[in-house]
Formats: sequence, C-alpha cells, structure tokens
Amino acid sequence: MTQLPVTITDVRAAADRLRGAANRTPVVTSRTFNGLTGRQVFFKCENLQRAGAFKFRGAYNRLAQLSAAEKQRGVVAFSSGNHAQGVALAAQLLGIPTTIVMPDDAPPVKLAATRGYGATVVLNNRQTTSREQIARQLADERGLTLVPPFDDAQIIAGQGTAALELLEEIPDLDALVVPVGGGGLISGCAIAAKGVRAKIAVYGVEPEGADDARQSLATGTIVHIAPPATIADGVRTQAIGTLTFAIMRELLSEIVLVSDAEILDAVRFVLTRMKLVVEPTGAVPIAAVMVNRIPRKLKRVGVIVSGGNIGAELLGAIMR
Amino acid sequence: MTQLPVTITDVRAAADRLRGAANRTPVVTSRTFNGLTGRQVFFKCENLQRAGAFKFRGAYNRLAQLSAAEKQRGVVAFSSGNHAQGVALAAQLLGIPTTIVMPDDAPPVKLAATRGYGATVVLNNRQTTSREQIARQLADERGLTLVPPFDDAQIIAGQGTAALELLEEIPDLDALVVPVGGGGLISGCAIAAKGVRAKIAVYGVEPEGADDARQSLATGTIVHIAPPATIADGVRTQAIGTLTFAIMRELLSEIVLVSDAEILDAVRFVLTRMKLVVEPTGAVPIAAVMVNRIPRKLKRVGVIVSGGNIGAELLGAIMR
Repeated sequence: MTQLPVTITDVRAAADRLRGAANRTPVVTSRTFNGLTGRQVFFKCENLQRAGAFKFRGAYNRLAQLSAAEKQRGVVAFSSGNHAQGVALAAQLLGIPTTIVMPDDAPPVKLAATRGYGATVVLNNRQTTSREQIARQLADERGLTLVPPFDDAQIIAGQGTAALELLEEIPDLDALVVPVGGGGLISGCAIAAKGVRAKIAVYGVEPEGADDARQSLATGTIVHIAPPATIADGVRTQAIGTLTFAIMRELLSEIVLVSDAEILDAVRFVLTRMKLVVEPTGAVPIAAVMVNRIPRKLKRVGVIVSGGNIGAELLGAIMR
Repeated sequence: MTQLPVTITDVRAAADRLRGAANRTPVVTSRTFNGLTGRQVFFKCENLQRAGAFKFRGAYNRLAQLSAAEKQRGVVAFSSGNHAQGVALAAQLLGIPTTIVMPDDAPPVKLAATRGYGATVVLNNRQTTSREQIARQLADERGLTLVPPFDDAQIIAGQGTAALELLEEIPDLDALVVPVGGGGLISGCAIAAKGVRAKIAVYGVEPEGADDARQSLATGTIVHIAPPATIADGVRTQAIGTLTFAIMRELLSEIVLVSDAEILDAVRFVLTRMKLVVEPTGAVPIAAVMVNRIPRKLKRVGVIVSGGNIGAELLGAIMR
C-alpha cells in the first residue's frame, strides 16, 4: 500500500484535540429503515454537530495547530456553506480573527449565521470575481492563513474523527457509506475506518450529474466537471483534491450515484419517520442505502449523515 | 411521605423488561440553547423512541405482564394519538391481537400507522359516541384487556424509564421538566428521578387553557375542564387520573404554563437549530425553559421531549 498523506495516528490526534470542543454526535438506528432495506444501518448524526455539520471537526483540527503568530494574524476561508460556519465557529472558540469570503447572493440566514460566530464577511459577486482568488489575495496582503475546504491533511484528519467515533461505538460494520464533495470527509473517514477495521468496505456517494469523483477514480486522473446542478449543495464541487484523490483511489470500494428525487425521498423519510432534520447532502448516502446501490451482502452499514443545514423554504416545500 | 402506588423498584423492573425492545434514546445538548437560557439543558429525545413517542414504554411494560390467557384474548385501547401507536406496536412485538378505537376524523396517516402495526381499528363518531365507552364495551363483550392511557401503575412505571435513563447518563441534574397531559409520563419520571436523586426538583408544564393538573394541585382535588383548544394535542386531557394525582401532589415542585405561541417557537427552534423534529406536546417543556418559567437558580436541567409525531401540514406551516 502506498504511503498515504494522512494516517490513523493523525485522526486519533485530531480526536484528542476535538475532545470537549466538538460534539460526540449520537449514532441512531431505525427499525423501520432496517426493515425497508434488509440491513442494520447506523446513522452517525453529524447534523447534530456544532454549526450543523461535520465541517467543524476539520476546521477546528486545522486551526488548533496554527502557531501563536498565525493565530494572531488570523485566517481566511471561502465558502457559501457549512465550511464557512465551521471555520467561523472554530476560530471564535480559539480566539482567532476570521474573514470569510461569501457570494453576495448567499441566503441572508447563512450570512447572519457566519457573522453570528464573529467572522468578518467579505461579499463577492460570483459573476465577476472568484471567491478563491479574493481569499488568496486577502491571505497574501494581510498575512492571513487560508483554510482550504478539503484538500489539507489536517482538515482530512479532523473529518475522519466522525468515523472513528462511529467505529468505537459499532465496531463490527461491514460497510461505511459517505457523501463525496471535495472528498475531505470520505478521505478522513476511510483512513479512520480502515485503520481500526481493515476489512470494512467504504463507499462514496455522489448525486447524478455531480459525479466528478466517480469519473476521476474511473479514469485514474482528477476530472473537472461543469458546475453541477444537484439539490445537494454541499457536494457541488467541480473537482476533488490531490490529497483526497490519492486517498480515495487507494481506500474506496466504489462510488455510486443517486438522483435528486432519491435524495429528497431520503430527506423526507428521515424527517417524518426518524424525526431528524438532514440537509440534502446529508441524505445522499442515506438515499444510496435506501435504493440498494450498495451490495446486498453488506448487512451492517454505517452512514455518515454529514449535516442538517437545510433552508426553511426547502423544508417547507418537502412537507407540501 | 405517603406510600405511593409506584416505586423506583417498579421503574427498574420496567427498565429490565424494556431492554432490547425500546430504544435507549439519546440525550442531546445545544450550546446555543444553553447560551440563550443561561443553563445547561439535557434533552431526553423520546421523539426518537419507537413509534415516535414515550408511549411505547408504558404500553410495552403493561402488555408484557399480561397472563398467557389475557395475551391470547387480546387488548383494546382508545386513542387518536401516540398511545394508539405505542399499544399497537407493543402488542405486535408481543404477539397480542389488538383493537384500537379511534375517531373517524383522525388523520388518515395516523389510522394507517396504527393499522401498520397490525392493529384492528374501530372507528367511532366523536359527536355521537364515546371512544372510551366503545372500548369498555369491546373489553366486556370479548374479554379483551383495556390498556388505559395513563392511570395505571404499570403504565406509569414504564414511562418512568425515560427519566431513569436520563439520570443514569446525567446524574447531577438540579431539575427535571416534563409535559403534563393525564400525568402518566410525569408521574413515572418523578418517581424515577426522586428515587435516584432525592433533591431533584420536578416541574410539570401545561399549555395555558389546558391547566387542569395545575388547578388540581392548587385545589387539592381532581379538576375536570372543558376540552382544551391547545395546539399540543398530546396534553388535551380534561382531567388527570387518581394514581397520577396522588403521585404528582407528592413529588412535584410546581406546574407552570406556556402559550401556544411559545410552544411553536420552541418547535421551530429545535427544528432549525437543533435539527430535531418534535411535536408541539414534546416542545411544551422546552418552551417553559426557553422563556424561563423555571427558577433561574436551577442550572442543570433535564427536559423530557415526549414525542415527534407532528403532521406534515403543521410542520410545513411552521416553516412558512
């Protein structure tokens, strides 16, 4: 096996750093879901994580390791979604000044939440400028540390703590099913899961039309796709990273796809039957298990429910 | 102290019976909620219980103790809500034939859910006949055992297991806050909580306009009220029971009231910020803590979130 850029030791060290800062989220089960799918499924509820998604784990692990000087100068990140809030909250807890570059058409509630964690929000017009470019410029000009959303060893190690906790609680899983955007979550989780249970099978799930990771693993090179139109806004990334690609091609069994309709069915099932609010991205792996995209012989299945930050409008629409 | 009709020993025995049958529901916390209220609040999530509410605990404890002959003849219950589903599921698991008397204007989804657990549903017209009367008649004619919704020692002991689990996990609570309908849940929980931690203060919460229990404790006699109009459909009972009255007057610190607007605010907060679906009745004690109806000196507070069976229409309306 190739030497990977992140090891189980890194994930364990991240778990130590996160203790007391991150929620140890509950693992829930549903006999109805089990009956429906003919499996025993264990949902790791990162929708109940601080700031509503797993992103806080990686951000906190990254920021906690900055030098005193770096902490004093501050950090910058670009994101319209959960990464923004994860970084802002982690920085607030660690007393680090934060700037987040967000699109000027982001939902007001997300802007307010990010500011609520004490971050300075810089708005950009997505038609005319690149958020990433602005963030890099701010980093250069002001000496800020750029916190990347996924392609970073410390971010990856932090995200892996979700799977580490799940496996501590349910050690004898046959498979782990994880949504794939940039690949930070699944890379960390695969390292953690394989690190404590070598024979576990790890499956990634992407929405149809956002299958850049599947294409990349199939072709053996990182494939860039056009901006995908899926409802799962957390996995609309156009390309996975260099580190995450290296880890995913080594550790994943397969990447499977689900449709937006299947994703929404899963959101609705979890909301009405399991009484949990999950965002479409969090429902991506749930949908894959519901419609049996994972081999039937895998009976004990862990699912990383990545987040719960769904807009009120969409939730209302789903209920109608 | 008067000899009460249910003891901590009964609750412990119920916990043994429920092991493997009921979910050991998670206890969740929210730093946002804590910041808002200046307390440390621990939510016992009975919305994640089987059939979506604590009712399964009492029903299963009651039904498991029937004789072989009683089990064979079957049981009957009357309910339009969570008790119906709790009894139906418990009976299904124990292989007991069940008849549930439900109003003919009950939501189709609740009729379907009850039938889904294998129960025979008998419909009654609430304008012309009493559900309780029909249930009693069926019990008499067919030798069925009537499973009362709350005023029964075994039902009460079963409901108490929710508080027993909470105190096992968080032993040093100052207070426990519980919704009050017929009083089965709060009676069992008060016995469990006081049984393992004598100095804990137990608060009941009722909606304004459904304050029959508060009036009963104030006057020292069971007060019957007109059918209450609160949105919290699980606590629309018109009078508490004889057993539950005896327990409540002995063990409760106070019963406090919340408005329907406060209840809906709590449902909305828990849904959007804590990513949990709770029904209005489950949000009744949450509302009381949110608006500080409980003395401020009580810092570590347990809340029994009784259930999550909220209709899609109401959920949609709350989101708009």
